Amino acid sequence: MNASDARTLPIGVFDSGVGGLTVLKALRDALPREDLIYLGDTARLPYGTKSPASISRYACQATAQLQQKNIKLLVVACNTASAVALDALREQMHPLPVIGVVEPGATAAVEARPAGKHLVLATEATVRLGAYRKAILEKDPAAKIDELACELLVSLAEEGWNGGAIAEAIVRRYLIELDDASRHPDSVILGCTHFPLLRNTFASVFDKGTSIVDSASTTAAAARELLDSLSLTNDQDAPGTLRLLATDGATRFARVGGQFLGQQLTYKDVTIVDL
Amino acid sequence: MNASDARTLPIGVFDSGVGGLTVLKALRDALPREDLIYLGDTARLPYGTKSPASISRYACQATAQLQQKNIKLLVVACNTASAVALDALREQMHPLPVIGVVEPGATAAVEARPAGKHLVLATEATVRLGAYRKAILEKDPAAKIDELACELLVSLAEEGWNGGAIAEAIVRRYLIELDDASRHPDSVILGCTHFPLLRNTFASVFDKGTSIVDSASTTAAAARELLDSLSLTNDQDAPGTLRLLATDGATRFARVGGQFLGQQLTYKDVTIVDL
Repeated sequence: MNASDARTLPIGVFDSGVGGLTVLKALRDALPREDLIYLGDTARLPYGTKSPASISRYACQATAQLQQKNIKLLVVACNTASAVALDALREQMHPLPVIGVVEPGATAAVEARPAGKHLVLATEATVRLGAYRKAILEKDPAAKIDELACELLVSLAEEGWNGGAIAEAIVRRYLIELDDASRHPDSVILGCTHFPLLRNTFASVFDKGTSIVDSASTTAAAARELLDSLSLTNDQDAPGTLRLLATDGATRFARVGGQFLGQQLTYKDVTIVDL
Repeated sequence: MNASDARTLPIGVFDSGVGGLTVLKALRDALPREDLIYLGDTARLPYGTKSPASISRYACQATAQLQQKNIKLLVVACNTASAVALDALREQMHPLPVIGVVEPGATAAVEARPAGKHLVLATEATVRLGAYRKAILEKDPAAKIDELACELLVSLAEEGWNGGAIAEAIVRRYLIELDDASRHPDSVILGCTHFPLLRNTFASVFDKGTSIVDSASTTAAAARELLDSLSLTNDQDAPGTLRLLATDGATRFARVGGQFLGQQLTYKDVTIVDL
């Protein structure tokens, strides 16, 4: 295949469920001409509470499915899989590129607040793996990092209760686990793909000057740069297409996912696949 | 095998995760001499958002694992699996008995409040399947039934935030979806195994005279009656043993499950099995 053909191939986006649709939305905004194929492994979500060995196995199976669709780039839109399985997925996709959500988020936080105090909000697995801590310290050894597991915010976003008194009370309740200084960070990193939906709640709870770093938009920006640098950006005139695959539950995927993607979906928009 | 040997065989208890440990605890209280084997399919939880076909397949695989341990009775401590897969599991276990959690809860509610107004709190899947509605109307055609999906309460129980202002605010927020009359039911049926942990919160939110029907204790009582009627009750003198199996994440199972079972657990108390 020549370079021009390769440019028209789709980008594959993989997540454990619907959360990665916030990344898909950011990709569509940043790269409106690219064809996008999203695969949500809804049959086995959540990855956040599973063992690293299981997470790696699942991520490799999902990637194999996307490879059959001839993708030119894999975006791992799942923090847990990015933290656990990125090396394995890069080996599997070689020589094609793979981007996770952890690196772009960490880079954006360090650039926004050099030698800053960062607070990572994530799932239990992402915190346990310390993925953001490692990625930030590699780029900025002077950084200070706190990590807080906030499982309940995932269900809150899926329920659509993203703003209001309950959401704020839950975020404040989680912050009790931190000492006083850590409650006033320079940057808050949204280390779970569900959390961009709660952005306004975070803005109300944290100090006015706090940078809120959203790994969806930072990952989309990183994908755009990478495609440019590899001469793989689609230069066709037509807007890109969107295909949604899931491993289970098309109706629920459409209902919850519609909120994440910011458009109405029905079960007919979702194709169920077996991994 | 003669009847006396059969009596000493263990009871198998199956759930999608840790929630069924509330049923296990109730069984241990009601039947302290029985050996109990619990299998939590943590690798594939939650069942509540999966399709009926997947749920049935998973439940049959889990049951096959427990059959290898030579159980005398299967207790399906998962509302979703009870609603979807009970017939398939009865066929698989035949001629040995199977009890789900839906029937005992529905029976207890109808007995407590004949011709009453019942409110079922459950997961999305249990509500969608209308399992409690069907079971209640079969026993009491004069009953009135409302069903409310409360997904967030599952995460709340797993986080251990069972009491206090946030828990009460979330329950009250769910009730907004009901009309005024339905907010004052005669009985509230806890149609998810996680919800007995939130019992005090429900007691604060609902009217003083409301019966709160907990399917854990009602299922344990039904299991005791059934074993008696089949002459399968263990009459040994020693206290029964307890074995915990899970399909993934022994550490998390131990930490969260300990709260549900009401005793300290470590990962060493949990054996990981493949289905």
